[in-house]
Amino acid sequence: MEHIIYLDNSATTKPCETSIQYINNALLNNWGNPSSLYSLGIEAETAVDSARRAIAGKISSREDEIIFTGSGTEANNTAILSVRNSRNKKIITTAIEHPSVLNTVKRLENNGFEVVRLGCDSRGVIDLNRLEKELDSSVCLVSIMIVNNEVGSVQPVAEAVKLIRKYSPQAIIHCDAVQAFGKMTINVKNLEVDMMSASAHKIHGPKGIGFLYCRKGTKLTPFITGGGQEFGLRSGTESVPLICGFEGAVKELPDLKTAEEKIRGINIYARRIFKDSGFIEINSDINACPYILNISVEGYRSETLLHFLESRNIFVSSGSACAKGEVSYVLKELQLNRSRIDSALRLSFSRDNKKEDIDLLLEALNEAVCRLRKSGR
Amino acid sequence: MEHIIYLDNSATTKPCETSIQYINNALLNNWGNPSSLYSLGIEAETAVDSARRAIAGKISSREDEIIFTGSGTEANNTAILSVRNSRNKKIITTAIEHPSVLNTVKRLENNGFEVVRLGCDSRGVIDLNRLEKELDSSVCLVSIMIVNNEVGSVQPVAEAVKLIRKYSPQAIIHCDAVQAFGKMTINVKNLEVDMMSASAHKIHGPKGIGFLYCRKGTKLTPFITGGGQEFGLRSGTESVPLICGFEGAVKELPDLKTAEEKIRGINIYARRIFKDSGFIEINSDINACPYILNISVEGYRSETLLHFLESRNIFVSSGSACAKGEVSYVLKELQLNRSRIDSALRLSFSRDNKKEDIDLLLEALNEAVCRLRKSGR
Repeated sequence: MEHIIYLDNSATTKPCETSIQYINNALLNNWGNPSSLYSLGIEAETAVDSARRAIAGKISSREDEIIFTGSGTEANNTAILSVRNSRNKKIITTAIEHPSVLNTVKRLENNGFEVVRLGCDSRGVIDLNRLEKELDSSVCLVSIMIVNNEVGSVQPVAEAVKLIRKYSPQAIIHCDAVQAFGKMTINVKNLEVDMMSASAHKIHGPKGIGFLYCRKGTKLTPFITGGGQEFGLRSGTESVPLICGFEGAVKELPDLKTAEEKIRGINIYARRIFKDSGFIEINSDINACPYILNISVEGYRSETLLHFLESRNIFVSSGSACAKGEVSYVLKELQLNRSRIDSALRLSFSRDNKKEDIDLLLEALNEAVCRLRKSGR
Repeated sequence: MEHIIYLDNSATTKPCETSIQYINNALLNNWGNPSSLYSLGIEAETAVDSARRAIAGKISSREDEIIFTGSGTEANNTAILSVRNSRNKKIITTAIEHPSVLNTVKRLENNGFEVVRLGCDSRGVIDLNRLEKELDSSVCLVSIMIVNNEVGSVQPVAEAVKLIRKYSPQAIIHCDAVQAFGKMTINVKNLEVDMMSASAHKIHGPKGIGFLYCRKGTKLTPFITGGGQEFGLRSGTESVPLICGFEGAVKELPDLKTAEEKIRGINIYARRIFKDSGFIEINSDINACPYILNISVEGYRSETLLHFLESRNIFVSSGSACAKGEVSYVLKELQLNRSRIDSALRLSFSRDNKKEDIDLLLEALNEAVCRLRKSGR
């Protein structure tokens, strides 16, 4: 692969060496079925348990509170649909959740649930007063993401949890931590959520594996049923290689505070030189997670810019990778005007990025505005 | 890994070289997100399409009829739960399906569906007359496995399909082909089923990837919702490495007829020397799929035998790996007496096995009956 500047780490990341090594070890030396009663099976089960321990350690949970899933999306589906038989029928979420939350909540809405989607301010943050007004004894589920995947806004989950416990003590509290896990320190015991979703491929692990944290004592109706793997909560032969690959990615995670400071440095640097450039607008709030920086080059369509940058071996996203080509409902929610939305680019960083990547990006964007024709609107 | 005799290939198989190579290529060189709009994403999407083509070729389906899932279990859940909103409320299945079918059908039964579980004769085969009697205009789903995972019995799916189309033309026909795919020739166009499930790790591919064949025109309500991957039918970032690993496993599949003949040779040889031994009973019918041979050593408990064999580096299963320690409902259905069920072992072969493995197994079983105390019952 030739040298590339990859600034789309919220879409997916390059698998790290440790992760690949762990995957290969499982494929070559630990390929038994964890359900088998003999050594080959027990060794595979032990490998799964080791990964579970590594992940539990990262979020300060118990080991048996980690349920492996085939993706962050599956984890979100599992958490949300777990209330499908609930007598309480009110669900609260936000308007800027990932499609795996929004489209799954929609299924319940189509089945008679009442859904409240909290709006956001221009920073991409929900209003806790609005949340408080919606809380009552009919709420069965509140699902709020930690870090938004398009603009990086961080929701006040801890404060929200306090309100929910006070006014809707019966509600299950779920948070989508797909863009937060491995980037910010998460302690589920302090956060006091009931369920939390994450995914390996956003932290230099493989695609096809995620987990759902499910607090001991929380009733979880299984989503995938069968042989009763994962404590009876998620059936299907465990993907030992990918579970091990997830462990490898977690083991290679740097100290999160130090890494965040480095990324913040890049983020602040980018904000400064973009501002100085005079033609790049910043859409992400200064308090957003520094790993994500949403910008606009007004007058130039996102996709046109994306492909121009691609020709310079720079990879960024137009909106989120999950909503291929559609107008971003997240940026709309932030009340940005249409021309700013249509010209938005999402930069998302990883520990592999450096300030020079931003210099090269700016250089390429400068070139783009010289060479490309301004779009109609 | 020291030399082992692995006779538990229906539980899982050792990943083959091509599969591992394809996985590594994806991890190292093709790690983009298939939903991304730039080359890195398009290359990942192309890799997924290539795998889809390889699999479609194996079952004579269209490419866009293959939906990748996180397991055979997920594929079964997807197919069965696709009728959850059906107005027709009768489901027909068999009593010897895999737990991922039986437990999922049970969910629908708990939600008001009527479920008929067809029994089997001593060969493990359903009675088509019984099926015919149950067919009417209220049937929404018929789910029949091709090869049973414990005894290898092969259901008359093609004949069943003809009856179902005649008497219940509105019904979705699903078959679980997890133990059949890659072992017997399957042509979905001739078989005329609507949906079919399979899994990579039963054919020397990785654990954590399966597929659901869904015939063009069949209404499939998505099971996992979100970003709309897999033609909108299965959301979640595609597990490119495992999908490629599945392709590698399919590419390394031998000519199925030739391979089956080889396995049949081993199976027939085993039947003969076990019969000659005077102490080993055969539970699998002679017409069963030769890859699976269920036997009993009456008077010796399955688990005791399993662990004795393990000490000789021979790995077999007691019943199925999915029902860890429970009495086999499949063998019960075959009307075997309790002592025969309690002493059952499942041998399951792969292209890596040879006749000498059977000789060593018999030798070890001879030793076992000399050394072990007979069990109480």
